[in-house]
Amino acid sequence: MANAVVSQSGGPTGVINASLVGVIEEACKHSEIDNLYGGVHAVAGIVKEQFVDLKKISLETLELVAGSPSSALGSSRDKPDEEYCGRILEVFKKRDIRYFYYIGGNDSANTCYIINTMAEKSGYDLKAFHVPKTVDNDLLVTDHCPGFGTAGKFVACALMGDDLDNRALPGVKIDVIMGRHAGFLTGAAALAKQREDDGPHLIYIPERAVPMDKFLGDIDAMYKKHGRCVVAVSEGICADGHTTWAEKLAENAERDAHGNVQLSGTGALADFLSSQVKSELKIKRVRADTFGYLQRSFAGLQSETDVAEARQCGRLAVQYSMKEDNGSVAMKRTGSGADYGVEYFRTDLCNVAEHTKSVPDEYINADGNGMTDAFIEYAAPLVGKLPRTEYLGTLPIVG
Amino acid sequence: MANAVVSQSGGPTGVINASLVGVIEEACKHSEIDNLYGGVHAVAGIVKEQFVDLKKISLETLELVAGSPSSALGSSRDKPDEEYCGRILEVFKKRDIRYFYYIGGNDSANTCYIINTMAEKSGYDLKAFHVPKTVDNDLLVTDHCPGFGTAGKFVACALMGDDLDNRALPGVKIDVIMGRHAGFLTGAAALAKQREDDGPHLIYIPERAVPMDKFLGDIDAMYKKHGRCVVAVSEGICADGHTTWAEKLAENAERDAHGNVQLSGTGALADFLSSQVKSELKIKRVRADTFGYLQRSFAGLQSETDVAEARQCGRLAVQYSMKEDNGSVAMKRTGSGADYGVEYFRTDLCNVAEHTKSVPDEYINADGNGMTDAFIEYAAPLVGKLPRTEYLGTLPIVG
Repeated sequence: MANAVVSQSGGPTGVINASLVGVIEEACKHSEIDNLYGGVHAVAGIVKEQFVDLKKISLETLELVAGSPSSALGSSRDKPDEEYCGRILEVFKKRDIRYFYYIGGNDSANTCYIINTMAEKSGYDLKAFHVPKTVDNDLLVTDHCPGFGTAGKFVACALMGDDLDNRALPGVKIDVIMGRHAGFLTGAAALAKQREDDGPHLIYIPERAVPMDKFLGDIDAMYKKHGRCVVAVSEGICADGHTTWAEKLAENAERDAHGNVQLSGTGALADFLSSQVKSELKIKRVRADTFGYLQRSFAGLQSETDVAEARQCGRLAVQYSMKEDNGSVAMKRTGSGADYGVEYFRTDLCNVAEHTKSVPDEYINADGNGMTDAFIEYAAPLVGKLPRTEYLGTLPIVG
Repeated sequence: MANAVVSQSGGPTGVINASLVGVIEEACKHSEIDNLYGGVHAVAGIVKEQFVDLKKISLETLELVAGSPSSALGSSRDKPDEEYCGRILEVFKKRDIRYFYYIGGNDSANTCYIINTMAEKSGYDLKAFHVPKTVDNDLLVTDHCPGFGTAGKFVACALMGDDLDNRALPGVKIDVIMGRHAGFLTGAAALAKQREDDGPHLIYIPERAVPMDKFLGDIDAMYKKHGRCVVAVSEGICADGHTTWAEKLAENAERDAHGNVQLSGTGALADFLSSQVKSELKIKRVRADTFGYLQRSFAGLQSETDVAEARQCGRLAVQYSMKEDNGSVAMKRTGSGADYGVEYFRTDLCNVAEHTKSVPDEYINADGNGMTDAFIEYAAPLVGKLPRTEYLGTLPIVG
């Protein structure tokens, strides 16, 4: 008999709580685990021994948790170094914690790895398992990552409605979507397209440089073709492959230094792009939205595939920990389209901890301003069922 | 036998298409109506005789339309004067259009009123009916307005998730919500509160002036109390009861005139408020989102009450037009809570055309920074069923 800790780290998602519930329900089945502690606010809470008892929660509450966005145990942005991990290990030893389940991105996998290595060195028997989570879908090894499908569903539904709004009141509409380094989530905007002339008409992701003249030229061409243009843009797009547009704006704002205007604020990139289109292309109706935190935490919206997979990843972390020493849960796709399915497997922590994944070349069109059919095939089953919509304004005009 | 036109005007909503489908399905039942034209892009299309045939649409397509956000016939921001309305009347006469159904806000009611008065004067028999639509809920006479409930549901779900996100990663979060003059939609953020300490902790609407020192003082107090603070702010909040904060920002931006920075852009108010909190209160984690167009056009999200009422308002406009000369469809509430219901009635166009409604005093708390229980009782049945969520980080810490 020994104790276990589960905790959630980094930016919340719409299904990180499903993974938590997966860990809880599976841990309750194993007599090897005595107390199941929830570490509140991730590593920041663990070092302060901020633990809650997760075995006392009713099944009804657990189901509500599984359907709730954000991290039900709280989160932290702390990136622990060896010293920090040493303090965590001390708490584990003090409380006889022998199982550690950490739900998060590659930083969390790295934390698991460091703690596990330190435990091994000091001869302390610890099972450290990482459960993958990120809206960015940028983890290595796994085919895709829990959290992406639900955020992608939000983005696709947003773009679907936004495109209809833009049909009703034509102009240029720019939507800035989360994704500093990987463009998967912005790419999910492509799933909004049902009809040939539906938006988004242009999609820009961090994997391809977007010089301003190209951006404006693309919009100009689409606006001439459709009489309107809907554009999806990652927050991390770069002008030149090095500095992001957002960073350039922040630099300018600091140089101007008028005090009131903070260009590093969340709406700055959208407003900047919008003002460029207005002033350079002389298009009157130009609007821009930054989707912000809604993408990862909108209540009541989950991809059914995503929530099921997230929960299963949580369950499997516990199952793997009964036989193996450490690892991260990963998925392999076993079929596409209607045959979509996944197999789960364990991979070494170090395989997930170090780097991040970018959108592969075959998912990006030749012009670097849209997604390919291969990407749609990849992302559609993860995002799941989307609403169907209709527009009547393109019916034939009666004589 | 005569012809009819239906059209949609102003900003789209999540249920303006339900009203359109209500008009179509009812019009098809009345032999008095021969052709049912859809006027594409509102008055702008009507003067150019941009009509589509709405009797040829399948029932299946109609149901998809009723569930689709935005204006399926397109929209326009044109505010027709007498000369413009005269051109509309010419088109009506040319095509023997005797029924005009116009779905929109108070401007659309006014357009109906002008055209109807002109028709009367020239001895042309026309039935002009207005079907209410607005996310702002600011129309007179009617208890509430189709479009509000669905936008309110989006806002409530957004704040619910955002509050959980703010619990996970505490700080100050500011959400800027649509509403230039009326605060009903921002007020709907109050429906997100399930637990005593849930956000939004502060709600600011245009009906109460919000000087910066009060805004900062309120946030400071809430942040000290809860260790975090979620704030919902109408885009139309004023510092002094006259000029809005957004207008002040735009003035400053024009005076600075550096070219690149457009403070009238959509994210400017949120970024400004956020920077004030950061610099004045020295709080490190401050984030701000502007919900933008998603509030009115997110696909797949409708309030069940709202969509049913919107459709019924469309049907009744046609029914009323069989007996009466002109009017606007309005609702009267017949019960509250579980007994919620409405009666529909016709009111004169001039009652709706002239002015707009503000949030009544009894719906605003004494401090001018939140909504009362009376508002919750008013708004809850309109927004309809909301998800339930759970958070575990406030469970008792184990010894």
